[in-house]
Amino acid sequence: MRSAGAMNTANPGNPGSPDDAWLDQVSWDADGLVPAIAQEASGGRILMVAWMNREALAETVATGRAVYWSRSRGRLWRKGEESGHVQTVRELRLDCDGDVVLLKVDQQGGIACHTGRHSCFFQRFENGRWEVVEPVLKDPESIYR
Amino acid sequence: MRSAGAMNTANPGNPGSPDDAWLDQVSWDADGLVPAIAQEASGGRILMVAWMNREALAETVATGRAVYWSRSRGRLWRKGEESGHVQTVRELRLDCDGDVVLLKVDQQGGIACHTGRHSCFFQRFENGRWEVVEPVLKDPESIYR
Repeated sequence: MRSAGAMNTANPGNPGSPDDAWLDQVSWDADGLVPAIAQEASGGRILMVAWMNREALAETVATGRAVYWSRSRGRLWRKGEESGHVQTVRELRLDCDGDVVLLKVDQQGGIACHTGRHSCFFQRFENGRWEVVEPVLKDPESIYR
Repeated sequence: MRSAGAMNTANPGNPGSPDDAWLDQVSWDADGLVPAIAQEASGGRILMVAWMNREALAETVATGRAVYWSRSRGRLWRKGEESGHVQTVRELRLDCDGDVVLLKVDQQGGIACHTGRHSCFFQRFENGRWEVVEPVLKDPESIYR
């Protein structure tokens, strides 16, 4: 990513240019989306899974900050735009089938989940039930003002 | 999981029984599926992403081995059934929206990907391209005989 000094693309957001071959290699689904996993660069914990369209992935690369596509709101979702919990992308990977993207990120504020928890995967299966095993670090009402 | 001695469910594969509440809490998509991330229990590397239906998730819990739903083959896919690269499930998590499952696994043979690589996420974005950055550990032709 640009901010990490590791990646450069020319015109990442201009579909059709020769430099968009990397975007064409992604296997977008029927809705033009791919799932994107955000994994903490330090420690490897999985923070969240969201969706990206072509524009979101291009902007993620161009800015070095995670940008998703909000299916519920039907628009680009610049992670942290309301909460301040921005994700700085350190590395970007694509799987063998090209249909899942993996982002290794630094999580601003240490909170990825809208519930105020570090990770969205805070429910662990135990004794036939999903148990909440991670604390709320910050009241969501104070995050989303 | 049973094999890890950490989880027990009665009748995990019998939809409709009272013990299936945990399966009902999963937000299955329109096709009755959820994405499932397999993460290495030791080290935290992400190995692969596949899909599960209700039956696959129930059998995963019942047996302690990762079972997916193969969309291409339209049937249950007991990971390792051909390759021997079984995944023993150490922990199972669900995200905040209930629509993604996370499995922490031990990967038999150290190979999760059908290309013979450790992880399916072997392509890293560098200088505007997806570069292959992980070696083939075993020729796929010798894996799938």
